[in-house]
Amino acid sequence: MTMLDEISEQPDVVARVLDTNRTAMGRVGELAADATHVVIAARGTSDNAARYAQYVWGARNRMSVGLTAPSLFGPLDSPPSLVDALVVGISQSGESPDLVEVVAEANRQGRPTLAITNHPDSPMGEQAEIVIDLCAGTEKAVAATKTYTSELTAVALLSLAFADEGIEGLDGLTDAMARAVDDADAATDTVTGLTDADRCVVVGRGFHQATIFEWALKLQELTYLLAQPFSAADFLHGPVAVVEAGFPVLAVATEGATHDQMTGLVSDMMGRGAHVVTITDGDAPGSAVIPIPPVEPWLSPIVAAPALQRFAHALAVARGHDPDSPRGLSKVTRTR
Amino acid sequence: MTMLDEISEQPDVVARVLDTNRTAMGRVGELAADATHVVIAARGTSDNAARYAQYVWGARNRMSVGLTAPSLFGPLDSPPSLVDALVVGISQSGESPDLVEVVAEANRQGRPTLAITNHPDSPMGEQAEIVIDLCAGTEKAVAATKTYTSELTAVALLSLAFADEGIEGLDGLTDAMARAVDDADAATDTVTGLTDADRCVVVGRGFHQATIFEWALKLQELTYLLAQPFSAADFLHGPVAVVEAGFPVLAVATEGATHDQMTGLVSDMMGRGAHVVTITDGDAPGSAVIPIPPVEPWLSPIVAAPALQRFAHALAVARGHDPDSPRGLSKVTRTR
Repeated sequence: MTMLDEISEQPDVVARVLDTNRTAMGRVGELAADATHVVIAARGTSDNAARYAQYVWGARNRMSVGLTAPSLFGPLDSPPSLVDALVVGISQSGESPDLVEVVAEANRQGRPTLAITNHPDSPMGEQAEIVIDLCAGTEKAVAATKTYTSELTAVALLSLAFADEGIEGLDGLTDAMARAVDDADAATDTVTGLTDADRCVVVGRGFHQATIFEWALKLQELTYLLAQPFSAADFLHGPVAVVEAGFPVLAVATEGATHDQMTGLVSDMMGRGAHVVTITDGDAPGSAVIPIPPVEPWLSPIVAAPALQRFAHALAVARGHDPDSPRGLSKVTRTR
Repeated sequence: MTMLDEISEQPDVVARVLDTNRTAMGRVGELAADATHVVIAARGTSDNAARYAQYVWGARNRMSVGLTAPSLFGPLDSPPSLVDALVVGISQSGESPDLVEVVAEANRQGRPTLAITNHPDSPMGEQAEIVIDLCAGTEKAVAATKTYTSELTAVALLSLAFADEGIEGLDGLTDAMARAVDDADAATDTVTGLTDADRCVVVGRGFHQATIFEWALKLQELTYLLAQPFSAADFLHGPVAVVEAGFPVLAVATEGATHDQMTGLVSDMMGRGAHVVTITDGDAPGSAVIPIPPVEPWLSPIVAAPALQRFAHALAVARGHDPDSPRGLSKVTRTR
């Protein structure tokens, strides 16, 4: 299985994660009932799924969601009080010791726990009261793709469960994912402006925080570009100074509440001479544009994933690297 | 007033913030009494002070601290429930509308609020129940320096107040800051390996999360390097792939729980041929080393600030830029 194979599996994985976890959803409301906020432990790609949860559970469920500092539970050995929290671990492997320790500490403190993992029988899965199975099958490529979209889908599913809404709210998602995989072919033509670059920034806002961090991470893993993600708001607080003529900017500007701010930012960057590649589901400026299917704004990060994955893959190939053998990386990182 | 003047003012600012806010500290315990977790709203440099709060209040006070997504309160207009939270706004100017809105929403929800600002009479200061005055005087340089150390000092002071400990726990800090400002002269000799670089990574762990994000931000603002901060743990989950011979790495490796992991990481990077500049208060490897005064590990980020500030300033000058007039930036950014 190559990374490209795993990218194209994503509609099937989304269908499976929705179907397999129906039963678990019925117990989620009760688990969360006495929690007033959510603490998430995650790293790497899963940390980007956690960012998605912060926005989706915040905006749709009005839950206050914080990403914890696993160091407090690991090397610093000073775990904070988790009183009133629902504690969620997100990990493909379910094995990273410092993340497992967060869930274990939550158990010691008597708090409700939930694990989102591709390995329900992993140490993290075994520590958690409810396990959401990512159903992604074995992910062989070092760069996570299908487990990322599966994690986002699990987060969306949990948003419905927290609100006691039916799973039919995600009925169109599998078809939209199939279209997203097809549309993502267009990404391969948009990489030319970055073939010789050694750095770029990735900007977006709102729900797409997850998208920009994941886009940057895929580029770091596969192309050895230094790709730095910025919330559009933070970007204007200083880092905007790096943009000069020819500077590569990757942007996500989809329909919804953040559309005008993002298209304004893209136009501003183009005015400074930047080379901007824009992912959009509607109208947006850009030196090159990658289309993604229009869906409800909160679901857009899920269908944006194939576009950023294909972009990173194509750019790696264009730069002479093998996306299936990135240097210096292993699939499971055991952080203590 | 130039940036260099403001860097050297920092011992005085630390002394002032400790002295001026004594009275407010007595009311902090009561304010926080019914909160079980902390939600912080901040952006830019102040967001890095928020990272410091996450680690210090987590490790010393066992408080669970989350950084909120201001977008939820602004453009997405879906503020999460803040029940059980103490809400803290950190802002030099106290003016950014989306941050003021987080504190205002906390008031509407009847939650306790605290503002850390250099302008107690600003909109944020006026919304908050308790205001910690940064006492930094006017900060004229666009790149924040003395307000950053003042914010960190305020966070340390609040840690003592939450624990009902006396302010004498910070008695040595002003003297350590004076020594830190002197020691930071050495930073100017360590920039040569980065004069022609256009990217670098900044790595650290634990309490120094704040340091690495602030070091990266100062470089972005002043040198137009793309400087990307990584927790040492996250760095091993993928981004490590960018490191090749000659790649510039900035590291913080001070005494304490994270020392062995950080010195191990620095040695590993040097083995890959990276050019590593290390900030340390003891023994640590590095192609070049910047000394900072030894203090308790949780206070180390405060005395590390002058070193990273002088480094960014010297590198800007070496690259032919004027640190007192960074391009494309203004002092107050009004994000909606």
